[in-house]
Amino acid sequence: MRINQKYRMLQESYLFSSIQKKVSAYQEKNPSAEIIRLGIGDVTRPLCPAAIAAMHKAVDEMAEAATFRGYGPEQGYDFLRTKIQQYYQKKNVRLSLEEIFISDGAKSDLGNILDLFAKENRVLIPSPVYPVYVDTNLMDGREIVYMEASKDNGFLPMPCEDVKADIIYLCSPNNPTGAVYTRAQLQKWVDYAIRQDAVLLFDAAYEAFITDSGCPKSIYEIEGAEACAIEFCSLSKTAGFTGTRCGYTIVPSALKRDGDCLQKMWLRRQTTKFNGVPYIVQRGAEAVFSEEGMAQCRDNIKQYQKNAQVIAKTLDMLGIWYVGGENSPYIWMECPNGMSSWEFFDDLLERANVVGTPGIGFGENGDGFFRLTAFGTQEATQMAMERLKEVYGK
Amino acid sequence: MRINQKYRMLQESYLFSSIQKKVSAYQEKNPSAEIIRLGIGDVTRPLCPAAIAAMHKAVDEMAEAATFRGYGPEQGYDFLRTKIQQYYQKKNVRLSLEEIFISDGAKSDLGNILDLFAKENRVLIPSPVYPVYVDTNLMDGREIVYMEASKDNGFLPMPCEDVKADIIYLCSPNNPTGAVYTRAQLQKWVDYAIRQDAVLLFDAAYEAFITDSGCPKSIYEIEGAEACAIEFCSLSKTAGFTGTRCGYTIVPSALKRDGDCLQKMWLRRQTTKFNGVPYIVQRGAEAVFSEEGMAQCRDNIKQYQKNAQVIAKTLDMLGIWYVGGENSPYIWMECPNGMSSWEFFDDLLERANVVGTPGIGFGENGDGFFRLTAFGTQEATQMAMERLKEVYGK
Repeated sequence: MRINQKYRMLQESYLFSSIQKKVSAYQEKNPSAEIIRLGIGDVTRPLCPAAIAAMHKAVDEMAEAATFRGYGPEQGYDFLRTKIQQYYQKKNVRLSLEEIFISDGAKSDLGNILDLFAKENRVLIPSPVYPVYVDTNLMDGREIVYMEASKDNGFLPMPCEDVKADIIYLCSPNNPTGAVYTRAQLQKWVDYAIRQDAVLLFDAAYEAFITDSGCPKSIYEIEGAEACAIEFCSLSKTAGFTGTRCGYTIVPSALKRDGDCLQKMWLRRQTTKFNGVPYIVQRGAEAVFSEEGMAQCRDNIKQYQKNAQVIAKTLDMLGIWYVGGENSPYIWMECPNGMSSWEFFDDLLERANVVGTPGIGFGENGDGFFRLTAFGTQEATQMAMERLKEVYGK
Repeated sequence: MRINQKYRMLQESYLFSSIQKKVSAYQEKNPSAEIIRLGIGDVTRPLCPAAIAAMHKAVDEMAEAATFRGYGPEQGYDFLRTKIQQYYQKKNVRLSLEEIFISDGAKSDLGNILDLFAKENRVLIPSPVYPVYVDTNLMDGREIVYMEASKDNGFLPMPCEDVKADIIYLCSPNNPTGAVYTRAQLQKWVDYAIRQDAVLLFDAAYEAFITDSGCPKSIYEIEGAEACAIEFCSLSKTAGFTGTRCGYTIVPSALKRDGDCLQKMWLRRQTTKFNGVPYIVQRGAEAVFSEEGMAQCRDNIKQYQKNAQVIAKTLDMLGIWYVGGENSPYIWMECPNGMSSWEFFDDLLERANVVGTPGIGFGENGDGFFRLTAFGTQEATQMAMERLKEVYGK
């Protein structure tokens, strides 16, 4: 018996445990300090009333033999796929139902999609990056090439014709940087992917935060994308489903590689290794896409967007460079006074009692930068920014 | 870009679509025929009241900021893992919490666990078999060796020292045959796995149907199993969770191969490619394991067991050979009069208007056999058996 020794290539991430240890130690020494956390990537606002009502109804259905639901289709119920189809129609993207796969979240599908690709493929990943892209490829032993995101390119790396790639990851709005690609930029990526015969894995988990019409919410708004891109989306940030677990993945029928149709392969993967999302959750997700549900979710998102604006205005006032915040719940700021990510973490914790996420936790390119999130409450965000002004405003 | 060409080795299964086509064609020609389906592997009884109440409560919690739950631990909440720990204690199996992983079902984990193993491993799989064992290994390109289950060995194949294996699948109570291994038999399998340095993947999805104390409900009731076995279990059949989606996988800390601890590897896999089971569902599952919930689930299972007894008695009366039915919801019968699986399917449909599953759909070894399930209603099962007696009782 041999294990998959590729797992030995994985590095343990101590990012969030290191943060927790530092915060706990500080709190112990300073029991009266009111620490505000702007580091979490999790939402804080409850589910919208439409989803709550729909899930209660679905739970009741499960209590009666006449309305009970057993095994559902692995790729999701048509009642939900139809809603997502309509959601895309509003972005002028036409999808057939079989191109829409309901998932238990973008993270699962981003990992599992790699089942479809040979291990010999070369993977292009931006840095800093959501660690899942890297780790899932290391587990398979694929070669990874990093594209450098930096202050110079606004943390939006563009394709370089000299770099050969088979699988390309893009996340826009980006986690962790909050940077968002424009239509023209994404067109260049799609054109590059087609020339390279590559598959573009497009993570659109934060699309609901885009307000600028110049920034596409779906890769399929870009000409040619249906022949090169798979899109991963989620209700986690759109509707606060981080603990309710529902997302969707689009695999276009037109996407063929190596003579095979990836939509058919993904259907085979999912029917073999997945049994679908709970009926109750799918009914909740359906309600999110109702007119009422969408309005309620937009209200929640607006609250987070207000937080992002408060953070952005504060950084503007302090003359600190940043990206994100406008079309994203994340603000990626340069650490003041040339501090490293961890130096600023300590400084911010000790002097302002505010916790954020050191940029270096997302890759070496992230050093000297810091992630703040808009997912806190309004009061906490406002208070944290007052403290920042006091400490760094001299 | 190269796809994973191993997918081309997969055969499409037309089993259930072929059944559906035949039934539809028959119904069209005979619109008044009242067809009874005893082929499905899905449950028909609703969720137990305890689970329903718990899920309503959890949905309510998601509606308020103070009780809202976002991201949970990928491996499941401790409130549920503790209940499962206690459930195992009743079987005299001691588990630590970190050995218990909450999943969205046995099917997902049975597929995903293969991430941990090298492609060069040799896989031993019984035939007939739950197709997922075969397909998930074909997707990775592993060599498969089949062990023949037959009337001679009561569809319970035993290890053969000459056969070298790295990964061994056992399912007891078995799907599709309903055959159940005794303690002595499982001890031989565990001893063999240890001698071979193999990992035993033990599918215990139907354990709740075991009534005979001589048949273990968990592989960990067997001495030495914690050093060679991973166990997959599910609430699908225990509590009717086929559409609610919750299971659990046990990876013992003592299970080491190739110098690595599989529990640590699985934790890494799940934290990287999975985001946990919905909070609402985990609360429902917790209620299943309460005293009240367990009693309610046992009542449901008893109804199914009565159906199994009705089927078994009928086959006894007709002098038809079968296994299963006693400690399992499945009855695996020999087709009467030397018919092949599909011949009997047609005969049963036309003469008794009863639908079952042809054994050949689970592998060539299944030809000449037929699967009936106890998951129908009592009335339908009773009526189907009356028809069998009439048609095959001469």
